[in-house]
Amino acid sequence: MKRGFGSDNHSGISPEILQAIAAANVDHALAYGGDEWCARTEQLFRDHFGPQAKVYFVFNGTGANVLCIDAMCRSHEAVVCAETAHINVDECGAPQRVVGCRLLTVDTPDGKLTPELVRTRLHGFGFEHHSQPKAISITQSTELGTLYTLDEIRALADLAHSYNMYLHMDGARLANAAVALRCSFKEMTTDLGVDCLSFGGTKNGMLMGESCVILNPALDIDLKYRRKQMTQLCSKMRFIAAQFEAYLTTGLWRRNAEHSNAMAQLLKKELQELMSQHSPALPSTPQHSTIKIMYPVQVNSVFVQLPAEVWHALQKEYFFYDWDEAQNVVRWMCSFDTTEDDIHSFVSALKRLL
Amino acid sequence: MKRGFGSDNHSGISPEILQAIAAANVDHALAYGGDEWCARTEQLFRDHFGPQAKVYFVFNGTGANVLCIDAMCRSHEAVVCAETAHINVDECGAPQRVVGCRLLTVDTPDGKLTPELVRTRLHGFGFEHHSQPKAISITQSTELGTLYTLDEIRALADLAHSYNMYLHMDGARLANAAVALRCSFKEMTTDLGVDCLSFGGTKNGMLMGESCVILNPALDIDLKYRRKQMTQLCSKMRFIAAQFEAYLTTGLWRRNAEHSNAMAQLLKKELQELMSQHSPALPSTPQHSTIKIMYPVQVNSVFVQLPAEVWHALQKEYFFYDWDEAQNVVRWMCSFDTTEDDIHSFVSALKRLL
Amino acid sequence: MKRGFGSDNHSGISPEILQAIAAANVDHALAYGGDEWCARTEQLFRDHFGPQAKVYFVFNGTGANVLCIDAMCRSHEAVVCAETAHINVDECGAPQRVVGCRLLTVDTPDGKLTPELVRTRLHGFGFEHHSQPKAISITQSTELGTLYTLDEIRALADLAHSYNMYLHMDGARLANAAVALRCSFKEMTTDLGVDCLSFGGTKNGMLMGESCVILNPALDIDLKYRRKQMTQLCSKMRFIAAQFEAYLTTGLWRRNAEHSNAMAQLLKKELQELMSQHSPALPSTPQHSTIKIMYPVQVNSVFVQLPAEVWHALQKEYFFYDWDEAQNVVRWMCSFDTTEDDIHSFVSALKRLL
Amino acid sequence: MKRGFGSDNHSGISPEILQAIAAANVDHALAYGGDEWCARTEQLFRDHFGPQAKVYFVFNGTGANVLCIDAMCRSHEAVVCAETAHINVDECGAPQRVVGCRLLTVDTPDGKLTPELVRTRLHGFGFEHHSQPKAISITQSTELGTLYTLDEIRALADLAHSYNMYLHMDGARLANAAVALRCSFKEMTTDLGVDCLSFGGTKNGMLMGESCVILNPALDIDLKYRRKQMTQLCSKMRFIAAQFEAYLTTGLWRRNAEHSNAMAQLLKKELQELMSQHSPALPSTPQHSTIKIMYPVQVNSVFVQLPAEVWHALQKEYFFYDWDEAQNVVRWMCSFDTTEDDIHSFVSALKRLL
Repeated sequence: MKRGFGSDNHSGISPEILQAIAAANVDHALAYGGDEWCARTEQLFRDHFGPQAKVYFVFNGTGANVLCIDAMCRSHEAVVCAETAHINVDECGAPQRVVGCRLLTVDTPDGKLTPELVRTRLHGFGFEHHSQPKAISITQSTELGTLYTLDEIRALADLAHSYNMYLHMDGARLANAAVALRCSFKEMTTDLGVDCLSFGGTKNGMLMGESCVILNPALDIDLKYRRKQMTQLCSKMRFIAAQFEAYLTTGLWRRNAEHSNAMAQLLKKELQELMSQHSPALPSTPQHSTIKIMYPVQVNSVFVQLPAEVWHALQKEYFFYDWDEAQNVVRWMCSFDTTEDDIHSFVSALKRLL
Repeated sequence: MKRGFGSDNHSGISPEILQAIAAANVDHALAYGGDEWCARTEQLFRDHFGPQAKVYFVFNGTGANVLCIDAMCRSHEAVVCAETAHINVDECGAPQRVVGCRLLTVDTPDGKLTPELVRTRLHGFGFEHHSQPKAISITQSTELGTLYTLDEIRALADLAHSYNMYLHMDGARLANAAVALRCSFKEMTTDLGVDCLSFGGTKNGMLMGESCVILNPALDIDLKYRRKQMTQLCSKMRFIAAQFEAYLTTGLWRRNAEHSNAMAQLLKKELQELMSQHSPALPSTPQHSTIKIMYPVQVNSVFVQLPAEVWHALQKEYFFYDWDEAQNVVRWMCSFDTTEDDIHSFVSALKRLL
Repeated sequence: MKRGFGSDNHSGISPEILQAIAAANVDHALAYGGDEWCARTEQLFRDHFGPQAKVYFVFNGTGANVLCIDAMCRSHEAVVCAETAHINVDECGAPQRVVGCRLLTVDTPDGKLTPELVRTRLHGFGFEHHSQPKAISITQSTELGTLYTLDEIRALADLAHSYNMYLHMDGARLANAAVALRCSFKEMTTDLGVDCLSFGGTKNGMLMGESCVILNPALDIDLKYRRKQMTQLCSKMRFIAAQFEAYLTTGLWRRNAEHSNAMAQLLKKELQELMSQHSPALPSTPQHSTIKIMYPVQVNSVFVQLPAEVWHALQKEYFFYDWDEAQNVVRWMCSFDTTEDDIHSFVSALKRLL
Repeated sequence: MKRGFGSDNHSGISPEILQAIAAANVDHALAYGGDEWCARTEQLFRDHFGPQAKVYFVFNGTGANVLCIDAMCRSHEAVVCAETAHINVDECGAPQRVVGCRLLTVDTPDGKLTPELVRTRLHGFGFEHHSQPKAISITQSTELGTLYTLDEIRALADLAHSYNMYLHMDGARLANAAVALRCSFKEMTTDLGVDCLSFGGTKNGMLMGESCVILNPALDIDLKYRRKQMTQLCSKMRFIAAQFEAYLTTGLWRRNAEHSNAMAQLLKKELQELMSQHSPALPSTPQHSTIKIMYPVQVNSVFVQLPAEVWHALQKEYFFYDWDEAQNVVRWMCSFDTTEDDIHSFVSALKRLL
């Protein structure tokens, strides 16, 4: 397929990851996590997230999110999240089916919850007709490519804890957030009071491997059974652990994330230049022929509103997702393997179509 | 870890599989199955299982089994299976949690259902207090290393269909069965009336990848949503498809299965020689010092009853599972990478301990 | 407890209902619905809703709603409903736990869905990451005491069917709606394309008994098992059927509903008189000392915004629910046994507190 | 329907119960358990089961059983029960669907678990592939009309607790057991270590009403939400409480149970007389023309093996359930309203057919 900006999971595997898999392919190892790669990588997670961190490797982001929710909530409880949260719009109802709980969604301007927004959902405690709010879930970086500051995360953690609730972070793109905020994983999670974390590697150069990281030991109850029962226990788990080991020890997570973030900045810059050339010089220039960047470009994605005819013409050359069909908004996502040439070609095509 | 006979998922990855993954690591590809590797491999499945076969790639055997059950049954229905079936004893209740259905188990002498055994569970039809039997599930080769003949499978398929039920085959070790029976996959499944199949590759040399293969098109309803919702949708699916492509096109499935089956025969032969040396030459030899092969060795496992003290001493040197603690039965499993030396060393150790 | 306006399930049982139960208390009858009272009452439902109507008696409204949703949706599908819908806010997540599906909620000004509002949720069809919209659920009369006109219902049914979806009506207060709209049950449901209905009697004078009425025979699949499995099968079902028989044959449903609706009109009238006396005669009268009727009073409830201090003082004398604490809105509900004296006393107390 | 021996839920309502319902039909009362009848009856349960007892009223036995299981187990855990247990064979898979857990069944000769039988299921602790045994469930009196002695119950409670498990008692017919054993409810439950109890009234003269009684306060976590979410919260709950109040305060539970037990003894006696007349006087009398009482008659049921042609002929006159079609065993159940004449007529009919 033509290289493009459809998703950061359209790219393949970083060479370091493939090498790590090959290197782990020696002799025999206990299945289901009892191997030396898992032991070493579990220690790496404790190094990165603090000594109390407990990692459960899983196959995919859905598995990590559902296992985290399962750790926090029983079926009569509820998770407050943004309307745009991946757990709400992109899991085909996995939390509802597997955990049986409710999601209490909040409209947000930019994919980010605030204490004020969350509070609108914090009622009905003790009322048996009402699913009991038990967790807040945020995505860092968000599905709209925006970032929570550390203070914003801390405020949500404090709010959660003041209600005897938990804070979950969906970190499918945690590495992109960490490099953007120039902080460690621990500074962005454990130190702020995050209780559990979906920590992903697949979107940032791994073959396949995500993790549910329990930061609050009170949540670490029976999760090995829960993971197995929800179909997320890997037999040859050393090959997931080995990927994370390479990801965390070689600096790959940082290099890949810095690169994809930088590529998004380049894409934004070229789009802005394009827009300045195409800006309505005269009042008669119809507004619908312009393009607009919808959100701050903080990590590796650029959300753009563009004229429908341009959009559809461009999609004939490049695959990308309609984000909001009603608003003519599309998502362009940079990846660890995006090149400057990829961007030049893409923007050239767009320029030609405008 | 010391090479041994703990499980066929203690071994690593066949070189052909690693090469296929590396070869698929080019440029961009649509995620979630929309790529060319998936397209080609789906065609391969149709070649192997018949033109109506529809494959859903999943992460692991639990996922394949649960998706198959989900395709056949709603929650008020039930699956008849052997008490020893993997879906009954080794999924930590995944079918119950994810599908919500019941398993109706039957004791068997050798892990194999028969029409007579199944019929003991076929009652209560139309009675709303009773979970409605809707599927029969068999494992080929079985969890006890035994095999259904083609006629036996056909008889169970016919029985299922005569009750408007379905037949599922758990084929985590289908390749071992096919080479043992000297038949094609299709001859062992589609041609006999099997309605859906869990077809595994992980235990026979793949890195990670299993599949739910729908052979009866009437069962192919909404499964793409069901797979996603039960957390089994892989993003970079080309890397599962590419493994199956190599597995099926290079003859790897056959080579690996033939080898692990042959190693089990060798192990059995050496054990028999050992037993003949240790057989009670005199009536006074106590029975509990002997070892006994429990089931016909038809694929790649050998189940052995041995004195408790020998068992525990041997486990200090080699990892293997207790199969039936009460009966002193253990399972020794050969793998695609088991060597003759592995067997000689293992039997020598056993001989030393007897 | 002091008689009041807390809920229409705070009142007891109509005498006709108690008599019917006593009359059914003769000799033996088959359990689980195989009795003559059920047979007769099932025929009554066909008389009232059309010959294809199939009734499943259940214990409560939650059971009726969940069984209806279960008839329409599998777990990967979704129900579009108002944010204020009982199935969304007052079932403690029963649809999510029992069916596993999602609810796609829409904010409404008055508790009523419109085709325009519903369309905002009708997207993502065929996209496996997205719960597939499969049903629309409306409440008639709504949780806010408002009514859909017949044309409005028909428009929603047409919309649903144009998307291969179903229309469910939560008719916990269907009788109140029917008398308000001066139409038959059939004219408000079957004739407009409603596919299934929760038809309640408990809030209108019955002891305990609700029903799931399947109007579209395509939905009548395996529901007897589904009802049992979700814990809603009654053993001595004749005593639920006998209540519905009396309810439907003696005109009780109509008498009770007309009365409670009339009492709400009287309450509204007395409140309006009170407000006219207390209306700000002078500009200096503080706005927060006034009360306001929030929605059209169309059935048996009156929603009122009133000063917080009045509200709390009144709650010391009368039990009623806070509807929207943030907005100082409360709900006052009339019942089949509400008397004019009840209303005079209540409004007098309010007047005294203003 | 002709009076008979089909089930103790074929009979109607005891007059005391109807009176209690009528007496509770006064004025207004808070819904969902906040009324004075519930308050008084909750105290009665504490009087009968000990001060720590907490009762949750539900609609039916399925609801009581599933709520008890939900209190004891999460989905990855399992309940050990007899193969014949109502929760296994007569709930259409409700525990699997609603709780998501497994039942680990044991064959028994008489419907009764023993520590030895239970121990066969107590393995795999800590092994993540295996549903973790967490509860033992017994039925008192059993589904086969047999009784656990107090010592037998205590032994099972001790066994459960020694494994950090719980003991549940399905007491759908607890009153019949208590009068047969001449002990109080508390002596048969709390005093022996029973952790939770399904305590039924419907089969012993109530209209409709069962209860989940939590005897071990450690299990009383969030059950009010769990009851609601599984659809078992009654709105006009005073009418369930009022039934239990009458049941417990008027001695009705005892009178009804003594009567139905006595009628079963009479039935047994008349059957024995019949059998002695029909006993093979001569060696040539064919064995298949005789009838046989299968289990000790300890409460209100008699299980009889009888010739198929007699069975089918008798079923044309009387409704009763086939218990075991393969073995020609039927169940005849006496009720609180069974009369001596009922028995004479029934046995006369049988005699005529032999």
